[in-house]
Amino acid sequence: MIYKTEVKDARFPLEGNAGSDAIHRDPVYSYAVTQLLDSGGLVGTGFAFTLGEGNELVCQAAHYYAKKLVGLDIEDLMADFGTFYKSLSDDQQFRWLGPHKGVVHLALASVTNACYDLWAKKRGVPLWKLLTDLSPEAIVNTLDLSYLEDELTKEQAISILTEQEAGKSDRESILKTGYPGYDTSVGWFNYSDEKVRENCHKALSEGFTAMKLKVGSADPERDIRRAHIVREVAGDNAKVMLDANQQWNLPNAISICKKLSSMNPYWIEEPTHPDDVLAHQTLAKEIAPVKLALGEHVPNKVIFKNYLQANAAAFIQVDAVRVGGVSEFLTISLLCKKFGIPVVPHVGDMGQLHQHLVLYNHMGMGHEALFLEHIPHLQKHFVHPARIRNGVYETPQEPGSSCDLIKF
Amino acid sequence: MIYKTEVKDARFPLEGNAGSDAIHRDPVYSYAVTQLLDSGGLVGTGFAFTLGEGNELVCQAAHYYAKKLVGLDIEDLMADFGTFYKSLSDDQQFRWLGPHKGVVHLALASVTNACYDLWAKKRGVPLWKLLTDLSPEAIVNTLDLSYLEDELTKEQAISILTEQEAGKSDRESILKTGYPGYDTSVGWFNYSDEKVRENCHKALSEGFTAMKLKVGSADPERDIRRAHIVREVAGDNAKVMLDANQQWNLPNAISICKKLSSMNPYWIEEPTHPDDVLAHQTLAKEIAPVKLALGEHVPNKVIFKNYLQANAAAFIQVDAVRVGGVSEFLTISLLCKKFGIPVVPHVGDMGQLHQHLVLYNHMGMGHEALFLEHIPHLQKHFVHPARIRNGVYETPQEPGSSCDLIKF
Repeated sequence: MIYKTEVKDARFPLEGNAGSDAIHRDPVYSYAVTQLLDSGGLVGTGFAFTLGEGNELVCQAAHYYAKKLVGLDIEDLMADFGTFYKSLSDDQQFRWLGPHKGVVHLALASVTNACYDLWAKKRGVPLWKLLTDLSPEAIVNTLDLSYLEDELTKEQAISILTEQEAGKSDRESILKTGYPGYDTSVGWFNYSDEKVRENCHKALSEGFTAMKLKVGSADPERDIRRAHIVREVAGDNAKVMLDANQQWNLPNAISICKKLSSMNPYWIEEPTHPDDVLAHQTLAKEIAPVKLALGEHVPNKVIFKNYLQANAAAFIQVDAVRVGGVSEFLTISLLCKKFGIPVVPHVGDMGQLHQHLVLYNHMGMGHEALFLEHIPHLQKHFVHPARIRNGVYETPQEPGSSCDLIKF
Repeated sequence: MIYKTEVKDARFPLEGNAGSDAIHRDPVYSYAVTQLLDSGGLVGTGFAFTLGEGNELVCQAAHYYAKKLVGLDIEDLMADFGTFYKSLSDDQQFRWLGPHKGVVHLALASVTNACYDLWAKKRGVPLWKLLTDLSPEAIVNTLDLSYLEDELTKEQAISILTEQEAGKSDRESILKTGYPGYDTSVGWFNYSDEKVRENCHKALSEGFTAMKLKVGSADPERDIRRAHIVREVAGDNAKVMLDANQQWNLPNAISICKKLSSMNPYWIEEPTHPDDVLAHQTLAKEIAPVKLALGEHVPNKVIFKNYLQANAAAFIQVDAVRVGGVSEFLTISLLCKKFGIPVVPHVGDMGQLHQHLVLYNHMGMGHEALFLEHIPHLQKHFVHPARIRNGVYETPQEPGSSCDLIKF
């Protein structure tokens, strides 16, 4: 039984312009951390990610949700978590502050993730194993599919998962090979050209074959120059992604993306405002065959549904520490599966939680094991930091979701 | 000069099921109030609206923004408010908590509205007069048109306003006749059929010719029965609006709206999730000629742009205490003008602020003077409560935006 909940405000200043992008020049990577103390002696840990300022607001909102968990048994709770999740996200008064977005939704992510972590710890298995061993019905019982009925009913969700049961054991080979990673940290926005070049060489020497550059400069020529530097160092076979972090409006995005197409980007990420489904739809048509990726700022399943319906993105970057936690992440992954679009999460969690989720997405849901973003900056703060060797995430073996932080 | 800012948490419990709808059964009408103390002795007051729980989070976020105003002169600030507004809404770290939605955006509304209130008080005029007397350029300088460039550039915005200068003096006749109101309080969700019937009679006797019923019951027959009660009492010439407050999913909405069409609703409001632009687009096509209204939960100009582009709503119900205050309200009104769609605000402010804004929308922007929602429940808490006679808002004459609250 969960007898107590604690919420903590954890902030980790970064060094040397790490984490900077076109919009967020000075981030302090921060977590609003929920801990569920279980009478069996276990502690479930989950968090949401912010850039510092206002992290305390997410903590306060998480406390409001977390206190509703006191007295509950984790197995009972998770047997019908979808209903509980909906009751929290549609809380009569609190709902007005969203709904399903912003501070309250980040808080819900923190609390939800702590529930899944405790559940896996209780069963003594890594989260990827817990999820993979669940029946299709048991997975779907942890989801809230409301407002998706036009695209994904409960029956359809169970059917998608059931269809994937057959190939599951084959896909379990990923556990041995490990899940491929890509290096996000070669080209933070404030890094000099020289540092970008140096970091690309380093990424290649570490075994990465995919890497990302931040673009979205006031001067498009800077973007183009730097993109070609990365391509030159990485070679024609590497996957190079460009990330504008919402910096462009639609007319600018069309013009600059066309220019950037000459260096053959694997995708162009967050070209414009994350709420602008129709701008992304127009842009995707205009710049095809160049592909768009987005999702790190998309708050919920409803907007993801619109992006998928609009055929506006070739890669969906849902982040389980931005949407309402593991539950909504899985819901959105199911939607993507239905639409045939790969899930390549943004990792506000630095990949700790998502290394479990992409393994499940591949084994249980039949998603392609494309690659997972790798950001190394907070490694020293985790009890079980993700292990990347030769550009590949090694399969985590510790019980839970690898989200425990060293005392902070 | 603004020498001090204060943020206050004001909550007003309601009596007897007032305010209840299909989703929000037990609201406590609340304001996160920002006050700007000016060295000239004036106090600018603005607020955002919530349903109670979490109002303190909006207050804290408003405090974060408000402190950036200390030391500024209000006339200097408002001369280029659009730039200042963008700097707040794109604050490097705080932005992650939205962007442009949820708690931080409600907080921005509170602070922005206090700026416009102080500005009008400084000039000694009601806000409607301040706005109406400004040049097109001066109005547009208070707006942030970023991410709208595909539909509304600064030049286009100025041009729309300039075209309306000619008919302005004719439209000023609205100041004498008053702005029509409609009665939202005849049919709150939890009211009995008898109370709804009684309230309809009362609304008619008070001079209203338009009124709204809350629908979205688990039992559609209840909705249909009550809708016909209102139509029966109000007569065929009255405008009767139905409000589902997001209760339906798309398949349900299509089915129930078709059934409700027989009582000839003037509009059906918030049929489904406020983020679901494409569901509203589909629904609007399916149930035409029945019209949709929405906006009370739409957080920003970008999503409104999508709704307009999708031709998904016949009435836009933007609320200046939900979006980023008067500035973004005016931006969205301009977008609506461009698309030829009327603005009929939701009044989280109980009409206090919006009575000014719709007068300006009509006189300065050339919007039709359709009607403004009237909710009477907080009248006794305002220093200058809106005056409704014979179903019409009398033009407010006090300097400012009529948002000062009696000591709370």
